[in-house]
Amino acid sequence: MAGHRPEMVFRSHMQAALDEARAAAERGEVPVGAVIISPGGHPVAAAGNRTRELADPTAHAEILAIRMACAMVGSERLGGHDLYVTLEPCAMCAAAIAAARIARLYYGAADPKSGGVAHGARVFAHPQAHHRPEIYDGIAAVESERLLRDFFAGRRADV
Amino acid sequence: MAGHRPEMVFRSHMQAALDEARAAAERGEVPVGAVIISPGGHPVAAAGNRTRELADPTAHAEILAIRMACAMVGSERLGGHDLYVTLEPCAMCAAAIAAARIARLYYGAADPKSGGVAHGARVFAHPQAHHRPEIYDGIAAVESERLLRDFFAGRRADV
Repeated sequence: MAGHRPEMVFRSHMQAALDEARAAAERGEVPVGAVIISPGGHPVAAAGNRTRELADPTAHAEILAIRMACAMVGSERLGGHDLYVTLEPCAMCAAAIAAARIARLYYGAADPKSGGVAHGARVFAHPQAHHRPEIYDGIAAVESERLLRDFFAGRRADV
Repeated sequence: MAGHRPEMVFRSHMQAALDEARAAAERGEVPVGAVIISPGGHPVAAAGNRTRELADPTAHAEILAIRMACAMVGSERLGGHDLYVTLEPCAMCAAAIAAARIARLYYGAADPKSGGVAHGARVFAHPQAHHRPEIYDGIAAVESERLLRDFFAGRRADV
């Protein structure tokens, strides 16, 4: 039974990230959500995408969550912290994750179109990143993809 | 004589970016500075690196300048705007420049250690970037490198 505990824990954190993604969709933002977990296992930041609301192209869920967690911790480094995000981070967010020294990155759906971890720039694959988190992908990917698909299908229906 | 005008203009904008880099050094930050110029040729944002002061790993000069310019313009897109930065942008900043649809990127010194434009992730070389600015490098590179070298030499002397 004990072997089941870790998976339950990280699925629960990803559910919190999915809740942020759903809230983003309700605000008319591309539904991506992120949470950051402290070394002690507690959520210290949660954010959804707010690029439109804030008129800020850097206001991706991961960037907002990292800035929030750094403000909480009072440091530009988040060593020992884990980041959960519903979609593969883009190159901007991947490089921010490296700069923040996030220990573990858990993400949901792959993003062949804009991803920068397993696709395109593959930010962590170069020594210029200075830090590479442990990476776990595909967690709750089906729910994450469904949110994105429904959001874009809805937008097409509005046109 | 008219042929000299454009170079004088972009050197003057880079001098403003160097002023921001010098101010950053005086605050104890890695000396990198950036300015953003409107389509009409006017500066709309200027920033230096503030990662330590703000305890924010995303507070690079380029990110702060992009957020400032977007707030001025009221849009997450800066089409027609130019960005001048004293050092080759990292992968995070390069991807933010792509997301903001910056028209032209002028940078000073190359950054083999942390750069993400001509080194490492080469963010604009992948279709996941969605936008590639025109890129002009090496402008005022000597002054930019001297600022960085003096800053790090000073820090070593403090140890």
